[in-house]
Amino acid sequence: MPLELDARRPDFPDAFRAFLDAGRDEAAEVDRAVAEILEAVRKEGDAAVLRYTARFDRLELNAEGLRFTPQEIAEAEAACDPETLDALRLAAARIEDYHRRQLPQDLDYQDASGIRLGHRWTAVGAVGLYVPGGTAAYPSSVLMNAIPARVAGVERIAMVVPTPDGRINPLVLAAAHIAGVNEIYRIGGAQAVGALAYGTETIAPVDKITGPGNAYVAAAKKQVFGRVGIDMIAGPSEILVVADGDNDPAWIAADLLSQAEHDTSAQSILITDDADFATAVQRAIEVHLQRLPRSEIAAASWRDHGAVILVDDIPAAAPLVDRVAPEHLELAVGDPDALLPQIRNAGAIFLGRHTPEALGDYLAGPNHVLPTARSARFSSGLSVLDFLKRSSLIGASPAGLAAIGPAGIALARAEGLDAHALSLSLRLEAPATD
Amino acid sequence: MPLELDARRPDFPDAFRAFLDAGRDEAAEVDRAVAEILEAVRKEGDAAVLRYTARFDRLELNAEGLRFTPQEIAEAEAACDPETLDALRLAAARIEDYHRRQLPQDLDYQDASGIRLGHRWTAVGAVGLYVPGGTAAYPSSVLMNAIPARVAGVERIAMVVPTPDGRINPLVLAAAHIAGVNEIYRIGGAQAVGALAYGTETIAPVDKITGPGNAYVAAAKKQVFGRVGIDMIAGPSEILVVADGDNDPAWIAADLLSQAEHDTSAQSILITDDADFATAVQRAIEVHLQRLPRSEIAAASWRDHGAVILVDDIPAAAPLVDRVAPEHLELAVGDPDALLPQIRNAGAIFLGRHTPEALGDYLAGPNHVLPTARSARFSSGLSVLDFLKRSSLIGASPAGLAAIGPAGIALARAEGLDAHALSLSLRLEAPATD
Repeated sequence: MPLELDARRPDFPDAFRAFLDAGRDEAAEVDRAVAEILEAVRKEGDAAVLRYTARFDRLELNAEGLRFTPQEIAEAEAACDPETLDALRLAAARIEDYHRRQLPQDLDYQDASGIRLGHRWTAVGAVGLYVPGGTAAYPSSVLMNAIPARVAGVERIAMVVPTPDGRINPLVLAAAHIAGVNEIYRIGGAQAVGALAYGTETIAPVDKITGPGNAYVAAAKKQVFGRVGIDMIAGPSEILVVADGDNDPAWIAADLLSQAEHDTSAQSILITDDADFATAVQRAIEVHLQRLPRSEIAAASWRDHGAVILVDDIPAAAPLVDRVAPEHLELAVGDPDALLPQIRNAGAIFLGRHTPEALGDYLAGPNHVLPTARSARFSSGLSVLDFLKRSSLIGASPAGLAAIGPAGIALARAEGLDAHALSLSLRLEAPATD
Repeated sequence: MPLELDARRPDFPDAFRAFLDAGRDEAAEVDRAVAEILEAVRKEGDAAVLRYTARFDRLELNAEGLRFTPQEIAEAEAACDPETLDALRLAAARIEDYHRRQLPQDLDYQDASGIRLGHRWTAVGAVGLYVPGGTAAYPSSVLMNAIPARVAGVERIAMVVPTPDGRINPLVLAAAHIAGVNEIYRIGGAQAVGALAYGTETIAPVDKITGPGNAYVAAAKKQVFGRVGIDMIAGPSEILVVADGDNDPAWIAADLLSQAEHDTSAQSILITDDADFATAVQRAIEVHLQRLPRSEIAAASWRDHGAVILVDDIPAAAPLVDRVAPEHLELAVGDPDALLPQIRNAGAIFLGRHTPEALGDYLAGPNHVLPTARSARFSSGLSVLDFLKRSSLIGASPAGLAAIGPAGIALARAEGLDAHALSLSLRLEAPATD
């Protein structure tokens, strides 16, 4: 049974805080194991990558076999169902269209003191994309990671995807091809993150690594952060559905299960003002579970991490939403725009009864790589901005320097940084040379 | 003697790579000590913060004494030199003006399929600002961290600043007041980062922590990353000056020293196409060092980490700049705009001979919190965007869902996620209810 909370009870604040604090990940020994793998990859390069791939993916390769050949990729694409390929291409086009609108503007202006100021955006040089393998080898993840990088103008996109026992979902390779990935390596786990961060004889190092993964991948990304950029520490997935009693319980039940079926540590939360509706949703979940192939995973997630929270009225849901800061938020209410301004923390917001989260997972356009584990309090979904960086621009004429330089000297001296002051005063004292 | 490299020699590529790989920080035991401190703060709250403050800052406090009172802040401001306060206020106004231009636009549109798409920016709820104490208690850092947060609309800005032996630079408190900081605590180090991340009885937890610090602060920020957001892992500071022979060697020498005087592990690099000019700069550095108060620090930095790189011509500097990816880049050449498009990686770019880095450190307007240790390859200086996060918006009408839903079902089924498919198909099958 999922947790049931009633916001009208006096013990609710404590119970809700305990619910927020409950961890869903066991990170105990992971950090140490990952540190060892990264160190081995850094020191031994390909040899370590091949050894761990043999151990964890049961796959014996040599260095030449690490990278998929163009022919392997073409064969994979040819083996895909044409209807699914069409859907992938539609998704790619929609994702590209949405992300193009995120491209930021450069800035270059002269202020009242005659100082030129601005900023310039440039693309990250090389990006590594982590794509989970095994049960979570999702072609949609490839599109969601690679397309923003390509739109940003990244010149080299190197993808890693584990192929346990040599198995690969051909759609993953097809998606990579559609999205314009330059290199694909059949490796995963911490060893793949290490190879991208440090480089090996076969794999050139990248500047930034993005993409979701399991606890080992998350720990590895965290450990190489600083040497390379990372997108975010992805945790288990969440959905929070705010629904009034006018929804079809079967629809909302399916939405909650679409998150629960990802992973036993995924989390689905329903907030409603209608106790009868909540009961009906719970009953519909039981009915759906009887016919879903991944019912075992979904049932465990719903039982262990699911929650139904009853509130007085729908507006009372907003502050709870902000504290959960869910990755996905559905506002399955009559007037979602009335509720929207009250909400601050959510990765993606799905407006109205006809917008299930799954639409955003695949092809609405916005990214499905979103902040998890309450991190929507301070971070955003993956975007074109994650593959760009900004250089600020400052240019002073002699007159501009004369206008504001003296205040700079005062501040430098106040901070006891006399070489700073000297670099300004020398220029103010000397006649301009050009 | 600083390292001297000549790009025209055959051994240059290897020597340059070794130069890039040389670490300037000793992180050996730091991680373990920091983990211990963070765990103690998480478990014991104020008690641990007070204990570490007594140990590291030689300051015995009780919980009530952790926070500066409004009266203490007003007294500090009254004790400041009025000319310096004026300079601080000018800097604050210029920083605010520049950062207001970074505020991003929301997006809300309907696409050809009738799907409503967009994104909405909202401010982070609560931000913690780390301000270094002791020899590096810089009021300018307070402005550079707090003002972008305030411009972004952050409601609560909590600042921490260590006060070793109870000493505080009154300008730091004045700057915090000018910048609109809400709370100031006299704590520092990993214990302050822990207090901000986990909260204590006295200090409410924040959502994001920004601001530079020493190796312990950097390690602590890295370890709490995920529970809270962080800006970046700040390392020792760098400057790279690209200068032709037409510069005054004394000016360029002062610029190189303005970085070197920060810290013995700071790094100053000169790239020039004129060997005689390089010699003149080195000679001017020796002259400046004889009269600078921080000459011991600056001399050690220049000797141990400084570098002079000779190139054939100025355009040949661009690819080297990109590989160094310096925090600060001066283009002290006749036509900096000719060189600018060739350069991709730099935190801030100072254009022309009359724009010393110190101008940007204090009051040009752009932020002086910039990516260090080659991270300008993948990250940007602090900005208003660091205090905002973006929620994507998706809203489908029944007709919009009918247009793209089937492709979503195809992709969900291809990924084996049948509850995803079910959440779409139920809505496509049923007649619309509103």
